[in-house]
Amino acid sequence: MSRPNSQDRALRERAEAVIPGGMYGHQSTRLSPEDYPQFFSRAKGARLWDVDGNELLDFMCAYGPNLMGYADDVIDEAYIRRMRQGDTMTGPTGLIVELAERFTAMVTHADWAIFCKNGGDATQIALMTARAHTHRKTIVLAKGAYHGANPWCATRPVGVTPEDKLNQVYCEYNDVGSLEAAVAAAGDDLAAVFAAPMKHDAFTDQALPDPAYARRARALCDATGALLVVDDVRAGLRVARDCSWSVVGVQPDLSSWGKCFANGHPISALLGSDKARKAASQIFTTGSFWYQAAPMAAALETLARVRDTDYLEHIEGLGTRLREGLAERAAAVGVGFRQTGPVTMPLFLFDEDPDLRRGFKWSTEMLKRGIYVHPWHNMFLCAAMTTDDIDQALDAAEDSFDALSRDLDSLGPVEKMKFLLA
Amino acid sequence: MSRPNSQDRALRERAEAVIPGGMYGHQSTRLSPEDYPQFFSRAKGARLWDVDGNELLDFMCAYGPNLMGYADDVIDEAYIRRMRQGDTMTGPTGLIVELAERFTAMVTHADWAIFCKNGGDATQIALMTARAHTHRKTIVLAKGAYHGANPWCATRPVGVTPEDKLNQVYCEYNDVGSLEAAVAAAGDDLAAVFAAPMKHDAFTDQALPDPAYARRARALCDATGALLVVDDVRAGLRVARDCSWSVVGVQPDLSSWGKCFANGHPISALLGSDKARKAASQIFTTGSFWYQAAPMAAALETLARVRDTDYLEHIEGLGTRLREGLAERAAAVGVGFRQTGPVTMPLFLFDEDPDLRRGFKWSTEMLKRGIYVHPWHNMFLCAAMTTDDIDQALDAAEDSFDALSRDLDSLGPVEKMKFLLA
Repeated sequence: MSRPNSQDRALRERAEAVIPGGMYGHQSTRLSPEDYPQFFSRAKGARLWDVDGNELLDFMCAYGPNLMGYADDVIDEAYIRRMRQGDTMTGPTGLIVELAERFTAMVTHADWAIFCKNGGDATQIALMTARAHTHRKTIVLAKGAYHGANPWCATRPVGVTPEDKLNQVYCEYNDVGSLEAAVAAAGDDLAAVFAAPMKHDAFTDQALPDPAYARRARALCDATGALLVVDDVRAGLRVARDCSWSVVGVQPDLSSWGKCFANGHPISALLGSDKARKAASQIFTTGSFWYQAAPMAAALETLARVRDTDYLEHIEGLGTRLREGLAERAAAVGVGFRQTGPVTMPLFLFDEDPDLRRGFKWSTEMLKRGIYVHPWHNMFLCAAMTTDDIDQALDAAEDSFDALSRDLDSLGPVEKMKFLLA
Repeated sequence: MSRPNSQDRALRERAEAVIPGGMYGHQSTRLSPEDYPQFFSRAKGARLWDVDGNELLDFMCAYGPNLMGYADDVIDEAYIRRMRQGDTMTGPTGLIVELAERFTAMVTHADWAIFCKNGGDATQIALMTARAHTHRKTIVLAKGAYHGANPWCATRPVGVTPEDKLNQVYCEYNDVGSLEAAVAAAGDDLAAVFAAPMKHDAFTDQALPDPAYARRARALCDATGALLVVDDVRAGLRVARDCSWSVVGVQPDLSSWGKCFANGHPISALLGSDKARKAASQIFTTGSFWYQAAPMAAALETLARVRDTDYLEHIEGLGTRLREGLAERAAAVGVGFRQTGPVTMPLFLFDEDPDLRRGFKWSTEMLKRGIYVHPWHNMFLCAAMTTDDIDQALDAAEDSFDALSRDLDSLGPVEKMKFLLA
């Protein structure tokens, strides 16, 4: 069952010459199992083809952006129609207004919107808005949470100064006591509490939000005048047709969005409540492509589908089928296998697997069988998936658990993951 | 000669409800003359239509992105073809390698590329790379230069902390003495010297780079081990088919690019030399849409045209015709009119015009005649413009100078520009 990979290897060699380290950022395979392809040629619906023509059922969904299916004809036609009339121009089109109206009508706490490109733009504008609103500087963040790759929230210290991370206090996600302590440490300088809608850090089990934690964050912001920011860039529209903390009954003042609300076309957003409107109008924030009309046309189409179809119940049903099926198959071979987070955004980790050798082995076996799963990052389901797809994944999983189980005691260390042991 | 504007007014009213301040960033008309439209419906070639159907010959070119003409059929078809095969996916396509090869082949100093979305992403990655390379923190910047809207280089202080701007020393652009003083002030902590390829700040005359200044910046970086960064986001490909400081014979270590190299499709880049490769491979930088294939297909098409056609000589010829024609017509009415910067990126300011009342009046007269010019920001020419277009602009300018000249002594203050007098 060896997969062809000569095209991928040839491109890697060329990439080595003209891209630092061969590839950068979250789509680098530097920390993936050896056989994982770096380069892809095509995508449609729930499927992906690597440059060597291997077909894959893709549980990464582009790390989130693929919500309704890759290359969705209706959404892409909306993009193309608008692009042909003019896209990046000297000013915005009326679509920016229409999109702000539609998005704020859908998200309970939101009265206004600013559109941008990166998820990290949206979290950075949230930070600036909160500081402008409060005339204070300190923010509270959960340790290990990802809010983008800008220096203030960078997760790797290289190229970042200690000064970039001043005015920050860390707490433990879902730990009310540590949240209270962090807010107390901020004293009278608290500008904002940032919260991921769930714990969805890499390399570790996910955790759904404890309603008591979310409510306490809201109460502490109300008591201090700070703004509550929910960073919904990653999870948005996969747990609710609203801000993701609506499922625990908590409304933030600001929420950041990105990835999937135009189904993979490049647009992100900060949504805010009236309380923060004046501050948001006073900061200067902009980008060359932020007023692009075509991604807004695609977003309008995507949000209409979010509003009008059962896409969410569909992926929740598929996610439950996947979770239950995997649990059963893992149990059958007696291997400890943890599935965490929302069923629409699963993360898989094995027990007794500190350097991920089990995860790498099992993921590699899945890949051989045409299923792309990630050994340490949360995954994403998309509405183009079917029960047949889930069943295909479960069949592959059964064989992959068998293969893992056979080799369980002879697995060698994963050198590239040794940093996890440190 | 009153232009219809009812659609624009209606959209502004709706925008006021759902967008902070009615619009944000550089495309807000908050600081434009009253009659300037906020919303547009269509663009093709060198022309733009506002939402009320008024046709405009557009000298802003989307603030730069429009290099080859709006809605260029060949470039857009390349985009669409690639989009239909898969755009934002779980990994990049081979186009990222091809684009890095083509771009580095074109730009003398460049050995590698990192692609991103915003121009400000590219300058921020430059900053991180320089700090990673040198293990130092301080950067030298020219006062008033724009390198994006991230907090470290923000031009408006609202929402930005003093800590965001630590480790920075300012100099005066083109002033060798002040550059030397700034480098001296950085002591043994100099990580980078940032330079715009020319002085292209808003509200003030532009200045071409003094070769002695550029050479001194290079020498000071060589002497200290710091990296020289040329921020070519705004000017790239409008003065050279290479980094813009190649015209003064100076090669940087890093150059940032954006806006126009995919003709308005969303992509930016940091290019670097081998010296900085290791550091660039060590930082963590990424974004959800940075690996998008379709903008890379459009960029390959745009860069091929840059390489293979006389687009640059064409816009330089048009720019010279415009500059000479305007100078003649301004002189004919005896009004002091300054045109600065490269002819392909002109900026117009009037003498004796501290609150821009002359500039606003003349620009408004141009707009009435179907020509979109900017009263305080540099403009951009595009390759879709023709000598007929320039002549149309010159005819409009003649009438507009006449109208200005008639009202010269009765112009009232421009309230929104009073901050310039402070």
